[in-house]
Amino acid sequence: MVYLTRRERFNAAHKLYNPHWDEAKNKEIFGKCANKNWHGHNYHLYVTVKGKTDPNTGFVMNAKTLSDLIKRVVIDKVDHSNLNLDVDFLQGILPSTENFAKAIWHELAKHLVGVELHCIRLHETENIYVEYFGEV
Amino acid sequence: MVYLTRRERFNAAHKLYNPHWDEAKNKEIFGKCANKNWHGHNYHLYVTVKGKTDPNTGFVMNAKTLSDLIKRVVIDKVDHSNLNLDVDFLQGILPSTENFAKAIWHELAKHLVGVELHCIRLHETENIYVEYFGEV
Amino acid sequence: MVYLTRRERFNAAHKLYNPHWDEAKNKEIFGKCANKNWHGHNYHLYVTVKGKTDPNTGFVMNAKTLSDLIKRVVIDKVDHSNLNLDVDFLQGILPSTENFAKAIWHELAKHLVGVELHCIRLHETENIYVEYFGEV
Amino acid sequence: MVYLTRRERFNAAHKLYNPHWDEAKNKEIFGKCANKNWHGHNYHLYVTVKGKTDPNTGFVMNAKTLSDLIKRVVIDKVDHSNLNLDVDFLQGILPSTENFAKAIWHELAKHLVGVELHCIRLHETENIYVEYFGEV
Amino acid sequence: MVYLTRRERFNAAHKLYNPHWDEAKNKEIFGKCANKNWHGHNYHLYVTVKGKTDPNTGFVMNAKTLSDLIKRVVIDKVDHSNLNLDVDFLQGILPSTENFAKAIWHELAKHLVGVELHCIRLHETENIYVEYFGEV
Amino acid sequence: MVYLTRRERFNAAHKLYNPHWDEAKNKEIFGKCANKNWHGHNYHLYVTVKGKTDPNTGFVMNAKTLSDLIKRVVIDKVDHSNLNLDVDFLQGILPSTENFAKAIWHELAKHLVGVELHCIRLHETENIYVEYFGEV
Repeated sequence: MVYLTRRERFNAAHKLYNPHWDEAKNKEIFGKCANKNWHGHNYHLYVTVKGKTDPNTGFVMNAKTLSDLIKRVVIDKVDHSNLNLDVDFLQGILPSTENFAKAIWHELAKHLVGVELHCIRLHETENIYVEYFGEV
Repeated sequence: MVYLTRRERFNAAHKLYNPHWDEAKNKEIFGKCANKNWHGHNYHLYVTVKGKTDPNTGFVMNAKTLSDLIKRVVIDKVDHSNLNLDVDFLQGILPSTENFAKAIWHELAKHLVGVELHCIRLHETENIYVEYFGEV
Repeated sequence: MVYLTRRERFNAAHKLYNPHWDEAKNKEIFGKCANKNWHGHNYHLYVTVKGKTDPNTGFVMNAKTLSDLIKRVVIDKVDHSNLNLDVDFLQGILPSTENFAKAIWHELAKHLVGVELHCIRLHETENIYVEYFGEV
Repeated sequence: MVYLTRRERFNAAHKLYNPHWDEAKNKEIFGKCANKNWHGHNYHLYVTVKGKTDPNTGFVMNAKTLSDLIKRVVIDKVDHSNLNLDVDFLQGILPSTENFAKAIWHELAKHLVGVELHCIRLHETENIYVEYFGEV
Repeated sequence: MVYLTRRERFNAAHKLYNPHWDEAKNKEIFGKCANKNWHGHNYHLYVTVKGKTDPNTGFVMNAKTLSDLIKRVVIDKVDHSNLNLDVDFLQGILPSTENFAKAIWHELAKHLVGVELHCIRLHETENIYVEYFGEV
Repeated sequence: MVYLTRRERFNAAHKLYNPHWDEAKNKEIFGKCANKNWHGHNYHLYVTVKGKTDPNTGFVMNAKTLSDLIKRVVIDKVDHSNLNLDVDFLQGILPSTENFAKAIWHELAKHLVGVELHCIRLHETENIYVEYFGEV
């Protein structure tokens, strides 16, 4: 088993805001992340797949193919977007880094053939990141 | 003359949008940066001051004092904000990285005593940054 | 299960020196790290916790709460300190990166509620880091 | 159990090219990585070992000893080399990042005493890396 | 005057070898960089332009336009290439980082309109870079 | 004119402490940096030289020669040292980053032949650095 990781980057706006709470409660729990006018991040996304190496190519998976897939399925939808408003696969989901990583997992997992999705690592800032390994 | 640089970071939303143009023209010029629902960045701000070193401290300026000043005058206003809507010193200014760097220069220059502001360097992503050295 | 990691940084002095050995033996084993006048590092500490995401917040744990805890329990004690002399939770412990990471684990683990401590990763330089996952 | 990681860097040329295929097939599968005149990378190699900490040193393994071993067994052979032509332990192996990481594992594993090799992580660019944990 | 910098990356093979010298002399001067089978690097290229900000866009130059130009004029020719063999604008030039930076300057300068090329900064490794500001 | 920069790294202990002041005054001015038991940093040193490129080598200066010089004249004296106690060229100098950068300039300038020393850039943390360009 070999693990291959590909990094992609995108820039998006969001806010942390639970619509079932009033603004005071949102401010109390989420602090300045609840700013009604949004804020944003340069997200760094690391996608790790695992599998056997193909004897003809030496690849677990062609890293270019993986990059193209991540771009088509994730980056094209989230780059320069508002995560609360613009992204089909985040409808109804509070875009915390945790929820966002899990949503990306579900988008990517269904498109991978011949390898297994191992980890979604999503960096919101250089100080905070989240990892999701699926329902394990 | 010695140059001292202090880095601070903040996260903000913005869009590139000229209100004198219609949406089509904005899309043509600014591309996805004109998304009406905003996008955002982790900005990295480098402030460079220059001066003589104080013989008692060995400092051009106390880096903690510089950090506190940048936080009070800039970061507290822009962190987790919307640059088009929330920031007093950006009212009426299209928040391109260039305009933003110049505006930060003008905010900081008036508060520095005993040293000279030399450069504002502002990174929007790991691939793009702007430098402003004042009206020279 | 989702994993959340928070990075904090601090600067400290230390030396690698076994008091049961003479200076020659310490030099032989620890080389220049045994310099009696100390040396120091900018340490980067990554704390990873794991848990379920709260449906109301989308958080495994509020990253701000985690940061505040790490600062109160670890950073405030070790930043700008001498690891051999100044730190209560390192008394009698040779401050190798390995021992230091384990000691940080034990300080933090007792304060975490509702999540599990998963990993302490401690970088001494950009070329050397240690990971500790508890007694497993 | 504590995990110690040491980073080393080297610069090498290679091409991705399967000698059992013609040039057209190689171009189709490997794209510009098949350029017959080679291309190259600044590789970053992270070697992780695991073990108990020695009570006398606080070390899993002396990081300097680990660095010296990696240099002698790997870096001296691959730095400023052509991976397809110059490296004894890559003879007959297509130098994909995956195959290269596995080959480094086998070179290092046989020299480690008192600790266990845990992971070879090999970065080809800042966007692509591979991890190998042995035959598990 | 505002300065805008755009980073692009590429991977290439090269060797440092003066064809007017024999192999012994090349080894003496260039060391392992003279390896006849080549080695390679992940180059990081920073292009800085300077100019006035356009009042309609807030741009010195559209960073996307600058990126597209660098890709078309430089990256497409040097990425996954052999700098000694494959690149038209390096014919007859020993591809030291210094010479390479100067050659990139001359390629880019002739295509820039409305802004001035200020600096080519070219990183060969994380420890070595070269800057060229034109014939000044 | 072409500018060549070489990075070197070292780890050292220091404190900011003016011996003509009492401890209270030192604490007031230098804060926790005045801790009598020292603290320390991973310093990153960037040395920039400028000159003409040699037509035979394409070099302003051989980067290996520059690295060897920096190691011999600076790194061997400061790595794993106490800057207040152990370094001959810092005797009687308060080791602020500013004073330290200036002292490194004077050590290196006298050894450079055929190129001009342009800048000493010294990073104390990832947030603070100092530049010195000589008596200009």
